[in-house]
Amino acid sequence: MINFTVGPVQSSDAVRAIGAEQVPYFRTAEFSELMFENEALVKKFAKASEDSRVVFITGSGSAGMETAVMNTLTPQDKAIVVNGGSFGERFVELLTLHEIPFTEIKLKPGKALKPEHLAELDGKDYTTFLVNKHETSTGVHYDMNLISDFCKRNNMFLIVDCISTFLTDPFDMEALGADIMITGSQKALACPPGISVMVLSPRALTRIDNTKCKCQYLDLKLALKNGERGQTPWTPAVGILRQINMRLKEIDANGGVEGEIARTAVLANYFREQIKDLPFEIVSESLSNAVTPLHPTTASAYDIFLKIKDEYGMWICPNGGSMKDTVFRVGHIGALTTADYDQLVNAFKDLQKRGLI
Amino acid sequence: MINFTVGPVQSSDAVRAIGAEQVPYFRTAEFSELMFENEALVKKFAKASEDSRVVFITGSGSAGMETAVMNTLTPQDKAIVVNGGSFGERFVELLTLHEIPFTEIKLKPGKALKPEHLAELDGKDYTTFLVNKHETSTGVHYDMNLISDFCKRNNMFLIVDCISTFLTDPFDMEALGADIMITGSQKALACPPGISVMVLSPRALTRIDNTKCKCQYLDLKLALKNGERGQTPWTPAVGILRQINMRLKEIDANGGVEGEIARTAVLANYFREQIKDLPFEIVSESLSNAVTPLHPTTASAYDIFLKIKDEYGMWICPNGGSMKDTVFRVGHIGALTTADYDQLVNAFKDLQKRGLI
Repeated sequence: MINFTVGPVQSSDAVRAIGAEQVPYFRTAEFSELMFENEALVKKFAKASEDSRVVFITGSGSAGMETAVMNTLTPQDKAIVVNGGSFGERFVELLTLHEIPFTEIKLKPGKALKPEHLAELDGKDYTTFLVNKHETSTGVHYDMNLISDFCKRNNMFLIVDCISTFLTDPFDMEALGADIMITGSQKALACPPGISVMVLSPRALTRIDNTKCKCQYLDLKLALKNGERGQTPWTPAVGILRQINMRLKEIDANGGVEGEIARTAVLANYFREQIKDLPFEIVSESLSNAVTPLHPTTASAYDIFLKIKDEYGMWICPNGGSMKDTVFRVGHIGALTTADYDQLVNAFKDLQKRGLI
Repeated sequence: MINFTVGPVQSSDAVRAIGAEQVPYFRTAEFSELMFENEALVKKFAKASEDSRVVFITGSGSAGMETAVMNTLTPQDKAIVVNGGSFGERFVELLTLHEIPFTEIKLKPGKALKPEHLAELDGKDYTTFLVNKHETSTGVHYDMNLISDFCKRNNMFLIVDCISTFLTDPFDMEALGADIMITGSQKALACPPGISVMVLSPRALTRIDNTKCKCQYLDLKLALKNGERGQTPWTPAVGILRQINMRLKEIDANGGVEGEIARTAVLANYFREQIKDLPFEIVSESLSNAVTPLHPTTASAYDIFLKIKDEYGMWICPNGGSMKDTVFRVGHIGALTTADYDQLVNAFKDLQKRGLI
């Protein structure tokens, strides 16, 4: 099976080889060393300031999003959240559950964030901005410079879900003034799912210090304290953290974050070029290199997902909810090559020949 | 390195082989099928009632403990908690954080729970009992029949952390009237860490329905709803769930839970027999098959851990906190053989010959 979903994605041979090893005991100086190396490389690739910190939560990207909300926001905050799809909606749910007052910028599926969306919120008493840099469900990549300028002007705390866009599109945490950036092991980090990675700015660290987290497992004070000695408060997914280490070093040895972004862009552009004559419409106004969201004009998107899986041995990424039949996505993250895309495009062409799309 | 810690432990070849495979896309009927199989086998091995349910949380065993507290208890409850070490203390911390009134049965390290500890709490208005069936930090295995009788007599809800004792010592969830049993992937399940497994009785399911969980990520209502179709609300540690599936089927094919308990008991007894002449005292009044907690009478426990690691290539399990220098533990879970214990005992004897213990 070739995997073109947006996670879990395909891992490199070196990362998979670690998956076959016995998982070592981890309350050791050796494992601490590895964790410090992970922290340094993630900071480097996120372009975080030297005094930022990184924590690794055993959990999904959504656990990282909730950890950010629970550890840095309180009912005294007033947040703005961009809601352009399922992951924006998740931030809305989290703010609601944790009783953080907020205003929602609701965008139709596929629509970009524009200056006019922010204009009426400028100069008000908002304290915090939450955004999914790439709304993975619809493949919309938001303009971070626009958001950064707005936040700087209004002195706002900025939480950025980079789960599917870290390592696929430029992100300069320090220059943007972002305070929390979140990603997951199973996206462009191309490791098995199970770890959420969070980078925390000095301003985030101060907020964490001053906020009581009502969940021990997701308490960043404990994670940061243990992180000082390269450890975690609870038994983490040690195997995946070792795979992340291998992958970060692979990226570092192959042109760093710029090299990885360029590699992903080549794949994305190659695929988008090849499908020009197929009955698919790109549904996003602002694409990331991570994924191409497509509306098939002649058939059900979910039927195409099933046929590609069951008859051609490949996974593309189905959408859920109201977009189940109208949109599928093709990912460009993980260990993929142009030859893999040739196979996928040939499968689409075969479906077309068979009159099925 | 041979790994004698209490987690992560050594995995079988078949489990490790899965670790080397690409992680498949999981929003599929194929993955749902695997999850249903996992649920059925865990229920079988926990001897849970047919109408119980199983959820798999991507997180540590501590995440499972907090999930239990957050989803079934409220400030209207009145709990009893057995606190005989770090993991009992963790339940105390969780009850405190979540504002659940409780009475603590504080036991000295190594001490068993006795009827007299419960006598004065009988016939009061307690609603809930929390216990680590095996207090892993000190290796004390509590008398579950004593606790079960007390809970039945007082009509109490019973939460049992079986993290390190599931599959190593007898546990009959239905007969004991236990309502929640918690375990983790990296203990006797002998898979990489990253998944906490919870079995929920019908009474637990009712409590979950009636309790508002203040953490979306750990919300069992969402986990149970998605579980109905063999799925999880968030991207889980798919690779580890596939390894758990392999391991559960291995156990099922090799005499089931009784076979696994017997296999572990043989290893534990073998080791305990071999160390009789060494300067180590067993510090627990009531041992589980999972681990042997030892107090070295002639040297620092932590120094022995370091020497065994650095000079003999084996991990034994150090203790933390105040027991760092006085206690280490030797585990009997995971893919170990009597030949492995011969190596460990020879290393101890060599240390003795060298005058280091």
